[in-house]
Amino acid sequence: MHVRPRYIVDRSAYSIPEFDEEYQKKIRSYPHAQKAKKFFSCSTARLKALLIQFFPIIAWLPKYNIKRSLFFDIISGISAGTIQVPQGMAFALLASLPPVNGLYSSFYPLLIYFFLGSIHHMVPGTFAVLSIIVGTVVQAEAPIEKFQHFNESLNETVTDVGAMNEYRMRIAGTVTCLTAVIQICLGFVQFGFISIYLSESFIRGFMTAAGIQILISVLKYILGLNIHAYSGPLAIIYTFIDICKHLPKTNVASLIFAIITGVLLFIVKEINVRFKHKLPFAIPMETIVVIVTTAISGGARLPQKFGIDVVGEIPLGLPPPEAPLVNLWGDMVGPAFSLAIVGYVINLAVGRTISSRHTYTVSANQEMLALGFGNFFGSFFRIHVICCALSVTLAIEGGGGSSQFASLCVATVVLVVLLALGTYLEPLPKAVLGALIAVNLKNTLLQVTDPYYLWKKSKLDCCVWIVSFLSAFLLGLPYGVAVGVGFSALVVVFQTQFRNGHLVAQIGASDIYRNPKVYDKAKEISGIKIITYCSPLYFANVEFFRKKVIKKSGFDPVKVLLAKKKYLKAVKKEEQEIDARRPSNLCTKQISLQELVKEVEAETAMDCNNNSVDEAPRISYITVNTPNGVHEATPKPPTDPENVEDPIKLAHPIIDIHTLVLDMSGVCFVDLMGIKVLGKMCSNYKKIGVTVYLAGIRDQVYEDIESGGMFDEGGLERSCLFLSVHDAVLYALARMSENRQDAAKEKVSGAAAVYINEDMSSDENDNDQDLEQVMFGTMFDHSVGDHTIL
Amino acid sequence: MHVRPRYIVDRSAYSIPEFDEEYQKKIRSYPHAQKAKKFFSCSTARLKALLIQFFPIIAWLPKYNIKRSLFFDIISGISAGTIQVPQGMAFALLASLPPVNGLYSSFYPLLIYFFLGSIHHMVPGTFAVLSIIVGTVVQAEAPIEKFQHFNESLNETVTDVGAMNEYRMRIAGTVTCLTAVIQICLGFVQFGFISIYLSESFIRGFMTAAGIQILISVLKYILGLNIHAYSGPLAIIYTFIDICKHLPKTNVASLIFAIITGVLLFIVKEINVRFKHKLPFAIPMETIVVIVTTAISGGARLPQKFGIDVVGEIPLGLPPPEAPLVNLWGDMVGPAFSLAIVGYVINLAVGRTISSRHTYTVSANQEMLALGFGNFFGSFFRIHVICCALSVTLAIEGGGGSSQFASLCVATVVLVVLLALGTYLEPLPKAVLGALIAVNLKNTLLQVTDPYYLWKKSKLDCCVWIVSFLSAFLLGLPYGVAVGVGFSALVVVFQTQFRNGHLVAQIGASDIYRNPKVYDKAKEISGIKIITYCSPLYFANVEFFRKKVIKKSGFDPVKVLLAKKKYLKAVKKEEQEIDARRPSNLCTKQISLQELVKEVEAETAMDCNNNSVDEAPRISYITVNTPNGVHEATPKPPTDPENVEDPIKLAHPIIDIHTLVLDMSGVCFVDLMGIKVLGKMCSNYKKIGVTVYLAGIRDQVYEDIESGGMFDEGGLERSCLFLSVHDAVLYALARMSENRQDAAKEKVSGAAAVYINEDMSSDENDNDQDLEQVMFGTMFDHSVGDHTIL
Repeated sequence: MHVRPRYIVDRSAYSIPEFDEEYQKKIRSYPHAQKAKKFFSCSTARLKALLIQFFPIIAWLPKYNIKRSLFFDIISGISAGTIQVPQGMAFALLASLPPVNGLYSSFYPLLIYFFLGSIHHMVPGTFAVLSIIVGTVVQAEAPIEKFQHFNESLNETVTDVGAMNEYRMRIAGTVTCLTAVIQICLGFVQFGFISIYLSESFIRGFMTAAGIQILISVLKYILGLNIHAYSGPLAIIYTFIDICKHLPKTNVASLIFAIITGVLLFIVKEINVRFKHKLPFAIPMETIVVIVTTAISGGARLPQKFGIDVVGEIPLGLPPPEAPLVNLWGDMVGPAFSLAIVGYVINLAVGRTISSRHTYTVSANQEMLALGFGNFFGSFFRIHVICCALSVTLAIEGGGGSSQFASLCVATVVLVVLLALGTYLEPLPKAVLGALIAVNLKNTLLQVTDPYYLWKKSKLDCCVWIVSFLSAFLLGLPYGVAVGVGFSALVVVFQTQFRNGHLVAQIGASDIYRNPKVYDKAKEISGIKIITYCSPLYFANVEFFRKKVIKKSGFDPVKVLLAKKKYLKAVKKEEQEIDARRPSNLCTKQISLQELVKEVEAETAMDCNNNSVDEAPRISYITVNTPNGVHEATPKPPTDPENVEDPIKLAHPIIDIHTLVLDMSGVCFVDLMGIKVLGKMCSNYKKIGVTVYLAGIRDQVYEDIESGGMFDEGGLERSCLFLSVHDAVLYALARMSENRQDAAKEKVSGAAAVYINEDMSSDENDNDQDLEQVMFGTMFDHSVGDHTIL
Repeated sequence: MHVRPRYIVDRSAYSIPEFDEEYQKKIRSYPHAQKAKKFFSCSTARLKALLIQFFPIIAWLPKYNIKRSLFFDIISGISAGTIQVPQGMAFALLASLPPVNGLYSSFYPLLIYFFLGSIHHMVPGTFAVLSIIVGTVVQAEAPIEKFQHFNESLNETVTDVGAMNEYRMRIAGTVTCLTAVIQICLGFVQFGFISIYLSESFIRGFMTAAGIQILISVLKYILGLNIHAYSGPLAIIYTFIDICKHLPKTNVASLIFAIITGVLLFIVKEINVRFKHKLPFAIPMETIVVIVTTAISGGARLPQKFGIDVVGEIPLGLPPPEAPLVNLWGDMVGPAFSLAIVGYVINLAVGRTISSRHTYTVSANQEMLALGFGNFFGSFFRIHVICCALSVTLAIEGGGGSSQFASLCVATVVLVVLLALGTYLEPLPKAVLGALIAVNLKNTLLQVTDPYYLWKKSKLDCCVWIVSFLSAFLLGLPYGVAVGVGFSALVVVFQTQFRNGHLVAQIGASDIYRNPKVYDKAKEISGIKIITYCSPLYFANVEFFRKKVIKKSGFDPVKVLLAKKKYLKAVKKEEQEIDARRPSNLCTKQISLQELVKEVEAETAMDCNNNSVDEAPRISYITVNTPNGVHEATPKPPTDPENVEDPIKLAHPIIDIHTLVLDMSGVCFVDLMGIKVLGKMCSNYKKIGVTVYLAGIRDQVYEDIESGGMFDEGGLERSCLFLSVHDAVLYALARMSENRQDAAKEKVSGAAAVYINEDMSSDENDNDQDLEQVMFGTMFDHSVGDHTIL
């Protein structure tokens, strides 16, 4: 059908220096100084841009089209406000706070967000996950026991609920203030990108765990139970056990309220979704349910009759500002960090989804700041931490609202409740609020099936999900964030350590090199090993890299070198003893030579320093020394160069490669330890006569290893770098045919002898170095280090 | 000189499916089940191997050559033992413990290590850095104030030194036991590789900070001062300030002792190093100094005369075993973790350096276990945490010792001191021990110049050093470990985010593609953009990747698509209005079209969601809609396909590329989020008529994206993967010339019209999805998500 193009190339092969010379590589200078200057420069234009950035309202308000938008903003705002009120009260219960706190939380931050927010449809407000984290803090700092005393006249334990709620709200304000400070700091240092460190698998696992925790926490309101509150790891398990134990004490009236409202809410929600396009507006079932149940409960005086737990007094008016209890911040740093990050991430995720629908962009840092200042302002008025009020925001969007005026309308609705209508809500059963929360959890709870799908797609992502889920569920949400984030990072490190690196071989006579285990037609070129490694080379995986190369090349250059040296020494000794004319010793020497081989063998067999990677094929040099019977026959004086060369010659046929090509095109960065190991490796292979070529090295990596001193310290020459694997192979083949011609011309051997003697002495110098210095210079570098960092 | 090989290739170009078919790719199965079976299988051979692994003594003892080794072992052991004794006592001072604790620590673990250790020259013992960490725990748990009371008859505060030392030793034993438990657990779960997570830059920075901390801690003994002990962050600063304040109270006799011994030790150390080969054995100056100063101090009754602080009573005999105070473990987890890791890492580093000199291998896990059990056994006898006694080990090696018998001799020497000679050491001034510690710090302190050299080699490694140093120095060593390790990990993540990805262009007509900014001769092929990205693609950098591609390709496909849609809608409306025969409206419509362009422009200018990467060149599609004057002239009914196609035609010349080639050869792994973003990106570009080709994808990555569902979800077809960039370019060129021929043959336009209509509707379906579901499915995916995880 299609004409298959042909791949025809005819060019010189290039090493990198040759290429750079021919094509005049430019040295790029990075104008850091200019950038810095620009960054610190000051101009009116820049000031204006900063102002607009910090106060997005300056940008959108003048453009606001009153005719087109205001009506929809008001309508959608008011209807969304009727959701904000019950939801705020419900989530305050999750935070172990009185419902009025939820109203405060649904009001104050909105005023700030109006000026600072950049997501037009967003309504800040309570979010169940955050509320429950705040709840753990509140429970830890202000447990109910603190406010109980034994009243002797009544002969029972009395709880001072008023004082407790008062103090708990201060605690909530305090943790909110700390969270706000963290968010503001992160926002100002432009750390908005911190959100990218949370992987989706982590977030879904975490959210699912949070969902189940919320469900369990809400059960006690639905069942009308009075349960001791736990905090710390496994708290949720204890709570669940307690709930099970108390099941017989269930308040049936509460349960009935909860079930009826729950079922109604669920059905209407489904209707709303299904008939989205047919309904003129979504049915505000939350509001209807709240009003109706309040009316029934209050009208029939049910709470008094059946002991239903109700919302209770909602103080009218706004609270006076209060300073946070700064001295408690020390205990709250962990949860506050979790709150700051989780709140921000949720906010941003919602914001980005909405903004991409309506084609405006969201400034990550500005959102961090808007949230932070919203929380900060609110924290003086006893709010608990807020982020985005999801269902309210959705209602605004669905109702056609398009600017922050809508959220101002929501605030107005809340204000009206706070100033006037609050008292009417007193007989509202908590069970109804509990049902409201539970119904909203549907989507979150459906995610428990995630691992099943994830497993098929990516095992590691599945592990991240499960670890995040379990840690968040069992250890509690703040710890869950830490464990989950840490584990996601660990998984990334794992990915750079395992499965990387394999041998490649040539396909036909082409420039294609592929894994011979996968493609039968890939054939190795004799004398050349090509190893590809696809991963950054850095402190955590250089060891794996080194072992991989040893395994794939078939031998460890250090051991080969050592074996050769031992062999040479033994031979020398033997010769000296022959000089001393003691023929009987020849025999014992012979044994000790064999012993030596065995020794090396035993030591190699004991190489159990391979946690996972290097089940290396038995190292081939062990067979090097076995033909020492051959050698014994030729004990000549060691000064004769031909003789000294012997062991190399004997060894050489076993190390049957002359060139090792490392395909570096997949190595995206190399740190100093990577450079050191790579350099050491090159010089070690060089010592036993194997040339290392690096192929396809990236520009950045080239710069890294150059400034890291790779070429200065003699590990590698620039001319051993090649454009591609094929270039390197062509050069290696050319070099070998040259050598063969040279060898044919003259039987040079002295050079080789000098060479091995030289490196023996150089290595002994190594041993002379101060071990302490060597060690600190070459921690983790197994081979004796002569390239210390300095 | 050399013959330059030529690079000649003539083959078909391949897409990956074609190649795999032609060369019969094998599906490799990984025999997990077999491996698991093998792992859990049980045989005598395996049991024996396990036994040998766990008790290395079984392997080395039978081979032990008494004749050859025993003599040297004993000699070197005894001389090293004379170093172990004063060093142990000195380091006990660092740990705020009585000197006898150092002797215990230098004795008990050695017994265990004899059986379990795998490094033959190693002598376990006290190590200054560990001792000082133990010191922080001891100070925090048993501050001196706890043992002070006001004695009224004496009218002064009296310290119960005996009880304090007793309790402090128990604390030391307790933290040692916890450390041991951690080490044993890590060893059994084969976590020996944990050491690789510590980069060398981190370790050097950390060690330097520890060195300075040790120096400051030791100053009070050298100056004979009595200083309050601080714990927690900045403790070392407070201590230093206190020392400065107390300088006038310096005990001159102590100082003189310290200076004289310090100078002597320093000189003899230098002599030992310089004349290593001429001296028959190293001068045991530590022992000489200790004996001489003890004799002088005791003989002349100097302590009583000048108030010199001395070692004091050393109880003879061995202590009875004591259980650790397990209830205190909760407070000690952090430092114990640091102790476990740092001790292990030091031990392994020393062990690897030595073993590589003597060509035997070290089992990382076994060392962890040996250390752990050594600490565990010792912890019942009041030791503090030990690892490798560096100078003692060096003395063994220098003295010709070669087996664990040497360390047994060291233990014997310590035992003799404990049982008999201890009492004679009572008048030894602490200042002498302080000087002994200070002199040993020389090499560590020289490392403060590291940053200077590191900066030249690698700026990031330099940052790691400085952060590790400052955090360890200011926050204390246990926190320093956490901060340093975290920061090293962060640096790795940074490396995958910045500097990656650039445009490449063809060099001549060859298969070489290079950055045109670096090589002037690299010329872009018209209509094809080639972008290379060298980094794993995973949750923390997919956003950067996406932005990089947008920046380098010159436009954002989502925005282009939206602009086109707005344009089309506006045109439709206009036409409808024209149909409604209101010519006056044509004018207002014209304005609103311009408005629309402005709107898009403004939104783009507000795109400040670019923390660092995407200072994109002003997006070219903004100019797309400016020629709407041209368009107004042709308002034809929308049903005519030619008309609907118009905007595309108008837009097309601006998006002047038809193919985007992503060079994936540097991408070493892709996680699920990477797959999602990549797939989304491909389908977005497809929608605006740009084909995405992936070139040089790695086998592993191919498997990842295949199982991740990349090809099933329609983002990309398998035939868009190519062996190399050049293959992809050849295919793209072939496709274009075909298209041009097709276009010449028939003026197809309906197809294109259907095409854009179709994707508009598909995108509107997007908006119908439940936002909540979409959001949780596509967190961080800016574009509207239709590929949720499930």
